[in-house]
Amino acid sequence: MSETIGYLGPKGTFTKIAVDSMFNGEVKKGYKNIPECIDAVQNKEIDYAVVPLENTIEGTVNITLDYIIQAKDVKIVSEVIVPIRQHLMVHSSNAAQPLDKLSIIYSHPHAIAQCHAYLRNELPNVKANSMASTAAAAEYVSKHPEENVAAIANHLAAKEYDLSIVEKDIHDFDNNHTRFVVLHKENAALTSNKLEEKGYKTTITVSLPSDRPGALHQVLSAFAWRNLNLSKIESRPMKTGLGNYYFLIDIEQKLDEVLIPNAIAEMESLGCSVEILGSYPYYLHSGNGVTLAI
Amino acid sequence: MSETIGYLGPKGTFTKIAVDSMFNGEVKKGYKNIPECIDAVQNKEIDYAVVPLENTIEGTVNITLDYIIQAKDVKIVSEVIVPIRQHLMVHSSNAAQPLDKLSIIYSHPHAIAQCHAYLRNELPNVKANSMASTAAAAEYVSKHPEENVAAIANHLAAKEYDLSIVEKDIHDFDNNHTRFVVLHKENAALTSNKLEEKGYKTTITVSLPSDRPGALHQVLSAFAWRNLNLSKIESRPMKTGLGNYYFLIDIEQKLDEVLIPNAIAEMESLGCSVEILGSYPYYLHSGNGVTLAI
Repeated sequence: MSETIGYLGPKGTFTKIAVDSMFNGEVKKGYKNIPECIDAVQNKEIDYAVVPLENTIEGTVNITLDYIIQAKDVKIVSEVIVPIRQHLMVHSSNAAQPLDKLSIIYSHPHAIAQCHAYLRNELPNVKANSMASTAAAAEYVSKHPEENVAAIANHLAAKEYDLSIVEKDIHDFDNNHTRFVVLHKENAALTSNKLEEKGYKTTITVSLPSDRPGALHQVLSAFAWRNLNLSKIESRPMKTGLGNYYFLIDIEQKLDEVLIPNAIAEMESLGCSVEILGSYPYYLHSGNGVTLAI
Repeated sequence: MSETIGYLGPKGTFTKIAVDSMFNGEVKKGYKNIPECIDAVQNKEIDYAVVPLENTIEGTVNITLDYIIQAKDVKIVSEVIVPIRQHLMVHSSNAAQPLDKLSIIYSHPHAIAQCHAYLRNELPNVKANSMASTAAAAEYVSKHPEENVAAIANHLAAKEYDLSIVEKDIHDFDNNHTRFVVLHKENAALTSNKLEEKGYKTTITVSLPSDRPGALHQVLSAFAWRNLNLSKIESRPMKTGLGNYYFLIDIEQKLDEVLIPNAIAEMESLGCSVEILGSYPYYLHSGNGVTLAI
């Protein structure tokens, strides 16, 4: 029986780029938002859910973390890191027009913000209008060949809506990447045969017993003297009010039987609560594929 | 001469709630996105800029930090923390209709996600459609009294677009707060005479010389043994590629002449680069005001 992969849709999103790089011909189902997608994997309507664990135009880390932590019985089983590249695209019948003759550029407000320097310097007289998503902007452009308008979106949106990319990589900051995690009911790492494995991570949350100077320092000692490298640490507010917070920590190692469990036991003996969100391989999407669309 | 305050618009945003709680009758100018607003304060077109430093529907911390760090000569001079509360609102001529007779609920996709449990449990048969912003959704509802539609937005949007709030606080997670920072060209703390000061923060970025186990632990020692409490720490990817990162750290104290400068000097002697983004008072918006609209 074929597996079903749920993701944060619609087609043409960065999440879909992550899904396509990880999975082959499985059934793929787009969800309208992150909580719906997490509900679906929790209720076993789908086998895997792919959602952003960092900020994207499509969703925020807040939303993903809030619902993963609430769901409890879904685990992170894999991760794909996708470079965020924004392109300017038009209907193919308008591809020969000079860019400064464009009347309006459509995109999601955050994508317009990400291309701020390009728009200010290269197309200062072209108006930028907001849409609900970059995919919706690409769809609008595909349906209005009679208007000389453009969309800012990714290469997959150009392909899905059959648009011509007229300017590549117009985002202001290179090396923007977003992490997408694969969620599953069973705590079983999901390996890819399509992408090269870059490493292994164990993601935990740690809440401290009280807000006191040096508490974090003490927690980090448990990792430092075991030479456990951390690739991410972030304090996040607890939902119980201002002033209380927990830490989201990525340990750059597979969950073993000695080092990480002992570090966790030590933190717990200090009064911390620790949850393991998953131990999983991670993969880097090359970011190539833009040539598909031009 | 009156001062000009720029903010991430349009009217009816959470950023505008922060602006109104901090400033009085000064000239207030809405900008379409965060980079435009930061440019304006850097070019002295406006005196102060108010932008989110945490994820909101209107912008992400990534965008704000990228442009603040690039601008270099703007400083954080104040902060307002605003509770994120979402309400269901309709045109006043439809306020007496039963909610399950609504045809469509409009909002930004992230706001729809934030109210996932409410919508699933209370209004499972009402369709939720995406718009570019919660304010745009409120505007649409105000202009279409003939349709029995609703918007999810904040109390200020209800007031600005003269809508009736029919269900208060429909967001799934309480205690969601967002930090809004006030930016200025001069490094001079901005105090409020409208809000009670909750404390003082100094925000710095620290980049480590190399990615090695325990480096963060060593950096935190500089704070821990001086009893300098940290209220936030977050590792963030550098724009130079994967694998390099810097830390965003909030020290719960005003920049003094001894403790913080000595901690910074120690970190620099370890090969770290340290930048001070600002030392400023912070304020908590009460979150009340919802009664205005009903």
